[in-house]
Amino acid sequence: MSVEETFSRIGQRLFSEHLVGGNFGNMSVRTDAGYFITKTGSYLDADPAQIVLMPLNGRVTPFASSEWRVHTAVYNASKHLAIVHAHPPYAVAQSLIKDDIVTVDSEGQLLAPHIAVVEGSCGSQNLADAVAEELAKSHIVIARGHGTFAAGKDMDEAYLYTSLAEHCCKVLSLTEQCKK
Amino acid sequence: MSVEETFSRIGQRLFSEHLVGGNFGNMSVRTDAGYFITKTGSYLDADPAQIVLMPLNGRVTPFASSEWRVHTAVYNASKHLAIVHAHPPYAVAQSLIKDDIVTVDSEGQLLAPHIAVVEGSCGSQNLADAVAEELAKSHIVIARGHGTFAAGKDMDEAYLYTSLAEHCCKVLSLTEQCKK
Amino acid sequence: MSVEETFSRIGQRLFSEHLVGGNFGNMSVRTDAGYFITKTGSYLDADPAQIVLMPLNGRVTPFASSEWRVHTAVYNASKHLAIVHAHPPYAVAQSLIKDDIVTVDSEGQLLAPHIAVVEGSCGSQNLADAVAEELAKSHIVIARGHGTFAAGKDMDEAYLYTSLAEHCCKVLSLTEQCKK
Amino acid sequence: MSVEETFSRIGQRLFSEHLVGGNFGNMSVRTDAGYFITKTGSYLDADPAQIVLMPLNGRVTPFASSEWRVHTAVYNASKHLAIVHAHPPYAVAQSLIKDDIVTVDSEGQLLAPHIAVVEGSCGSQNLADAVAEELAKSHIVIARGHGTFAAGKDMDEAYLYTSLAEHCCKVLSLTEQCKK
Repeated sequence: MSVEETFSRIGQRLFSEHLVGGNFGNMSVRTDAGYFITKTGSYLDADPAQIVLMPLNGRVTPFASSEWRVHTAVYNASKHLAIVHAHPPYAVAQSLIKDDIVTVDSEGQLLAPHIAVVEGSCGSQNLADAVAEELAKSHIVIARGHGTFAAGKDMDEAYLYTSLAEHCCKVLSLTEQCKK
Repeated sequence: MSVEETFSRIGQRLFSEHLVGGNFGNMSVRTDAGYFITKTGSYLDADPAQIVLMPLNGRVTPFASSEWRVHTAVYNASKHLAIVHAHPPYAVAQSLIKDDIVTVDSEGQLLAPHIAVVEGSCGSQNLADAVAEELAKSHIVIARGHGTFAAGKDMDEAYLYTSLAEHCCKVLSLTEQCKK
Repeated sequence: MSVEETFSRIGQRLFSEHLVGGNFGNMSVRTDAGYFITKTGSYLDADPAQIVLMPLNGRVTPFASSEWRVHTAVYNASKHLAIVHAHPPYAVAQSLIKDDIVTVDSEGQLLAPHIAVVEGSCGSQNLADAVAEELAKSHIVIARGHGTFAAGKDMDEAYLYTSLAEHCCKVLSLTEQCKK
Repeated sequence: MSVEETFSRIGQRLFSEHLVGGNFGNMSVRTDAGYFITKTGSYLDADPAQIVLMPLNGRVTPFASSEWRVHTAVYNASKHLAIVHAHPPYAVAQSLIKDDIVTVDSEGQLLAPHIAVVEGSCGSQNLADAVAEELAKSHIVIARGHGTFAAGKDMDEAYLYTSLAEHCCKVLSLTEQCKK
């Protein structure tokens, strides 16, 4: 399966699960020459995928996602080989009311017992550094009020941590509503 | 891509994201001769799209969406080239309890920090004037208890503001539930 | 379009909008010889549709939906030509806490300002009579804790009232949560 | 229809209804020689399905789902011929706040008036025994904070009890929110 096909396949799953809407979010996968990242403004579920090759030296390829700073910082600070950034609504809502999300479902407790919440405005180096610092030691982090950044050995793993995070936050939110 | 294909593509996205259900909502795109608008009672995700050409002089083409007054008023009052009207449930619910929706997520704060709520009964000139006045200076407005009207340089942009508004209102709603 | 194609098309819309899950719900359309109804246990989104012809004289065709009594009663008591029965979760929840659902959104106020809630156990003549009495004067009713029965001049109209009822009940539910 | 096609068909329904996300969950069907079960880490909606044959004697086929202990225990303790394990969010949330889920909707009261909640860590024999004991006398059980295990005479029946359980728990949750 080509790189473009993997982007489309994962993007379509993200869209079907309502982890991302419109043309929000972005994704990348590491290669020898840098990383492939979705184009700014492109739909993650586009087929064929709209991607460009970015170097890791800070030079910016035209049309790369405006969130490239996060992707570059994560690849420079970790061994992750793929990143998915999405806007899952329950995860975003939980990040606005907590500094550290403690998961209560079994999968969360196994794979992400704590999900860190980091600060920084969209596209800023501050946000990139905060996300990279957290993803150097984990697979998932939430930028407060903004969305998830998940990383792993391939795009499937990064997608799975995105799906997991939203599931954990939805269960948390439903549990908290009922307990009140 | 033909005008009909763009209508179908955007309508299918709106339906998949649950921004519109049944045959509710309508969409239009500006042309030299007026604007193309979905037919009354047609499904936004229909393929091929069910559209008719409307002039901007107030004459009504048979079968045009009954909400044509809003579309005519917006094109006459602004430079927008496309309009999407949908019924996203969180946006409708927020509009029933607030006069001005202050978004709390990053995308909302960047693209629509305030979403205005306007009044007017469906199909009335009052509603058309209120929506047009607001869209002359923004991309998105909510008719109280009714739905979103989003406008932009093309149908993709109008769809994106629709998706954004529902995301913002869902995050707001989830945050408010949890904070209680 | 054949009768079977219409059943499949409407069933797929009901399933996509989460108005029905699994193989729950049933649908019928009037014909000269009686009415076509989905088979018991069949998926509403099945392609080709699984339907049988029922007479209106009380004789039961093998494999007809176990809810045939409601369909027979409605056709005998009204001029409706199609019926959709679904299990939309917000409508079911509202029916458990109210005797009369007063809609607050614009479409609800226009098309179904009050949605009646009726009683009766699944498959009983009591339920059939209560639904038929209400649908003789309206397009939509909710059987308490069970689901919607919508009727109209064709399957599209019956589907639209189903979608409308869930939209109204979701908006009501979200509004009530936020107001608390 | 082949075994693989049935797995894909049911997996796609589970994914479309949001009963499972990512590559979570697993499914199996009984055969003379043991049972077919989804591979560890495979997507339930994969086409073709990713399945392996497991014996019932405790020997483990490479790549079988890590939750095979539950499936083996259920087939050894009951006459069920198929099992679906999913992670429906409302069912998981209800299981975290209750020991016994009393359904309030008509379908729940008919088919699963009580849904038991059992304990045990993922993949453990304890969980397998607890699930098997409950499914020897019913069609559906929830592992606390983890997900549903549904069983029946074929994969369709196991899927239907999964869909039913989530519907019941969603209606319960919405009713409890509104009643507060």
